[in-house]
Amino acid sequence: MVLSFTMKSPADKSPHTTKQLALKRVGIDTYHENVAYLHRDCEIYRAEGFQALAKVEVAANGKHILASLNVVDDVNIVNGQQLGLSEEAFSLLGVPDGGAVTVSPAEPPHSIPALHRKIAGERLTRDDFAHIVKDIAAHRYSKIELTAFVVACNQGELDREEVFFLSDAMSKVGRRLDWHEHPVVDKHCIGGIPGNRTSMLLVPIVAAHGMLCPKTSSRAITSPAGTADTMELLAAVEMPFEQLTEIVHRHRGCLAWGGTSDLSPADDVLISVERPLSIDSPGQMVASILSKKVAAGSSHLLLDIPIGPTAKVRSMPEAQRLRKLFEFVAKRMGLTIDVVITDGRQPIGNGIGPALEARDVMRVLQNHPLAPNDLRQKSLRLAGRMLEFDPDVRGGDGFGIARDILDSGRALEKMQAIIAAQGQRDFDPEHPPLSPLSFEVTAPVSGTVVAIDNVQLARIARSAGAPRARGSGVDLLAKLGDAVEAGQPLYKVYAAYPTELAFARQACERCIGYQLGQADQLVSLHVEY
Amino acid sequence: MVLSFTMKSPADKSPHTTKQLALKRVGIDTYHENVAYLHRDCEIYRAEGFQALAKVEVAANGKHILASLNVVDDVNIVNGQQLGLSEEAFSLLGVPDGGAVTVSPAEPPHSIPALHRKIAGERLTRDDFAHIVKDIAAHRYSKIELTAFVVACNQGELDREEVFFLSDAMSKVGRRLDWHEHPVVDKHCIGGIPGNRTSMLLVPIVAAHGMLCPKTSSRAITSPAGTADTMELLAAVEMPFEQLTEIVHRHRGCLAWGGTSDLSPADDVLISVERPLSIDSPGQMVASILSKKVAAGSSHLLLDIPIGPTAKVRSMPEAQRLRKLFEFVAKRMGLTIDVVITDGRQPIGNGIGPALEARDVMRVLQNHPLAPNDLRQKSLRLAGRMLEFDPDVRGGDGFGIARDILDSGRALEKMQAIIAAQGQRDFDPEHPPLSPLSFEVTAPVSGTVVAIDNVQLARIARSAGAPRARGSGVDLLAKLGDAVEAGQPLYKVYAAYPTELAFARQACERCIGYQLGQADQLVSLHVEY
Repeated sequence: MVLSFTMKSPADKSPHTTKQLALKRVGIDTYHENVAYLHRDCEIYRAEGFQALAKVEVAANGKHILASLNVVDDVNIVNGQQLGLSEEAFSLLGVPDGGAVTVSPAEPPHSIPALHRKIAGERLTRDDFAHIVKDIAAHRYSKIELTAFVVACNQGELDREEVFFLSDAMSKVGRRLDWHEHPVVDKHCIGGIPGNRTSMLLVPIVAAHGMLCPKTSSRAITSPAGTADTMELLAAVEMPFEQLTEIVHRHRGCLAWGGTSDLSPADDVLISVERPLSIDSPGQMVASILSKKVAAGSSHLLLDIPIGPTAKVRSMPEAQRLRKLFEFVAKRMGLTIDVVITDGRQPIGNGIGPALEARDVMRVLQNHPLAPNDLRQKSLRLAGRMLEFDPDVRGGDGFGIARDILDSGRALEKMQAIIAAQGQRDFDPEHPPLSPLSFEVTAPVSGTVVAIDNVQLARIARSAGAPRARGSGVDLLAKLGDAVEAGQPLYKVYAAYPTELAFARQACERCIGYQLGQADQLVSLHVEY
Repeated sequence: MVLSFTMKSPADKSPHTTKQLALKRVGIDTYHENVAYLHRDCEIYRAEGFQALAKVEVAANGKHILASLNVVDDVNIVNGQQLGLSEEAFSLLGVPDGGAVTVSPAEPPHSIPALHRKIAGERLTRDDFAHIVKDIAAHRYSKIELTAFVVACNQGELDREEVFFLSDAMSKVGRRLDWHEHPVVDKHCIGGIPGNRTSMLLVPIVAAHGMLCPKTSSRAITSPAGTADTMELLAAVEMPFEQLTEIVHRHRGCLAWGGTSDLSPADDVLISVERPLSIDSPGQMVASILSKKVAAGSSHLLLDIPIGPTAKVRSMPEAQRLRKLFEFVAKRMGLTIDVVITDGRQPIGNGIGPALEARDVMRVLQNHPLAPNDLRQKSLRLAGRMLEFDPDVRGGDGFGIARDILDSGRALEKMQAIIAAQGQRDFDPEHPPLSPLSFEVTAPVSGTVVAIDNVQLARIARSAGAPRARGSGVDLLAKLGDAVEAGQPLYKVYAAYPTELAFARQACERCIGYQLGQADQLVSLHVEY
């Protein structure tokens, strides 16, 4: 090609303007969305022909971030010589207020053609997933692009090789831990069952046996309590990574919040669109869970899939398909997995909400007469399976060993050591810090409890303020199979504020979440536990 | 159910706070996204437990809008007693600065369960589409929900009944025009071919024949010029609807911008996510086009589907499938449609960019010796088909009538009348207002032009500043089948600013968009025109 110019070509080979602006921290919290603010009269804004909401790249000292552009007409926010950044974006860039920055149109992420192929329903390669996940973890995707990826993967259904590609790619961006030991055991439940705080019992039992179990957990996202929320009533759960490592090596286990360790950061970004859409497809669930476990350095994983009419997984064939997908991907990733399908017909334990669940856990550890037996039994069985990851434990012996550790008080002792190491909080299980307002929901007729709706009970507990209000939630007073008289309390709801009490009451008025009937209406489940 | 309260239930039945805040217009332009700003210390923010980016409903005097929440830490933006709104949101609510407003968490849109069913791949009913489209038009969907709908419809492929449901629902929200005449004829091209300004020739020809042709067009979204951008060089295109109606009834036609008439508003919202994803699925294309035409009161539509290796539609079977979908949905909507498949192997006319295209159109109307013949021929053939919508025109006679109208100068006369009525602008086709900077791209070797890349030529014209810079763009000096010598100019690029000239030059350096070869390499197409 020959280009003949009728004007002198400019000496500057880069057409992008490199004029500098003064950085300003704009006191607006836009959550995880980076926003850049330019005044409408700013010369760069005019020269570049930027559009509002366009993606721009802000750079300084070799560092750069991507942000969406908002155009400003008020010099009190930014003037024509400034570039404003929302609070999180400002921290991410790490340049002081007033520092010189440049701004330019952001190049579209390189993986966009692969995204378009996925939207068109094509199968993607391992490289495609690697590039997409890298761009997602680097916050290069807009909310629109992220959603398109999530929905396209959900609707087209990834095949199992693709789920492996996605999981593997996700485990490889971000931090990766190495405990320099083998085995490193972990446990995970796919969720959906209120109560169900088995991790807080498994860790002390398994660690007391001597296996390394560095358990990190999330806070509640859509549920009334996460393990981290509940543990936080007993001990600090956020600590520098170095301290966490020391605790794990010393006590063989921990119960910490996983949020700060930056494992599988792409997962956190994906969750920001999966959550509002309530998308939880098998492929995305497997990739989310296994990428985090592998990045956390686990070699063995016990996975709990509860099934029941109001659980996430509602039938045995569905649970078996999910189990095989977990097993396939885990094997490809070099992770030993044991998948256990459990009874998810009702909440596990009595309490729903951080303080109530912490009370239940401590009662089981203390062998307290009021300890919920279903939580104890399920924890012992799962702990037994984890103990059998130990090559020195014979198949079938795990349960007995776990029960010995719990009954002898060694589990409580281990828990107390972990609590002390993480930083003990003031918590008396005999007098848990419950919220001051409450009401009871009673049986409208006499009969047997034949169904408890996990989803509705979780909704009631959240309406009452859990997990934000730690002492709020629901305390179950009757469980499946119990015979109750009309007027007898089924559960008690705790709330911290009158508005939240009213919200919870409205939720109960719509549906109490309990079904009473004849004992023979109780559906039985053929699960291991 | 019996609820026994351990506290007096509050008299107030609504738990939502109704405390009022003072409205403040925040000088930030967030484009079509409504943003509400609350100070972190605002009592309502704290009491409601709002999250950043949560959707809130802002209400005053019976009016209300939905907005995403940004949390503010700077009292210069808003203080604890104020609620801020971004500029467009402020205008939408229509409450004066300082007016009293209330804010509450937004209820999720009622159609969300239907959205979830579409994400899961289910077929939706007519009612489902009606509810979804209503919520979309009312801006009740978040960007995430909008994207999920678009991608789910794209990937699952709507069946043709569903495309009808969607089109019908879209045509029924928003304004609907009635011209109190029959027939009302219109024309549309699915796009993708630079130049191709046939509407500006069809309208004067058809209107000169006496048929009612109230043409409204869009501005360019991703192309280097839209009909409205080009027409705007000759006449005003934005006017009150009453004035437009008068012009149409008096002159039988118009060439106006369609943006303000609020036809099919859901389409505008959907486009805001389809565009960044470059999604243009058959179902969404049909729904977008037909909903607007029906809402605009058209009874007859001529639809142009260009095909070619770099057109939107690349094969005849694909074009035929699309044609049948258009025909099916149009029939269900009571719209008479004539679908014409045309030659889309190269740009139509010589100019690409508003001023260059306006020059081409005026030359054809003036029967100027330099008038591009392909634009003339295509326009005459399409006009002929439109004229045959007239029951008094015999099949096959349309082309001859159109040619007579053009050759006799009656089309030019009609165009001048429409221009005068809309508000004439200063434009001399002999000296179009081209941008001052330019360069030529010349043939690297001698040969025949065997391919011209529509997409690359459009990209070069946009890099040069079109359509924002009206005089910028590309002027083609050789077309398919022309024999050129090495060094002979293929096209000339015009730009208004050095940076844009440099951008365009870079685009040409990557690919000139012309392929030279042997005459027999020229692919022929079996299309009607």
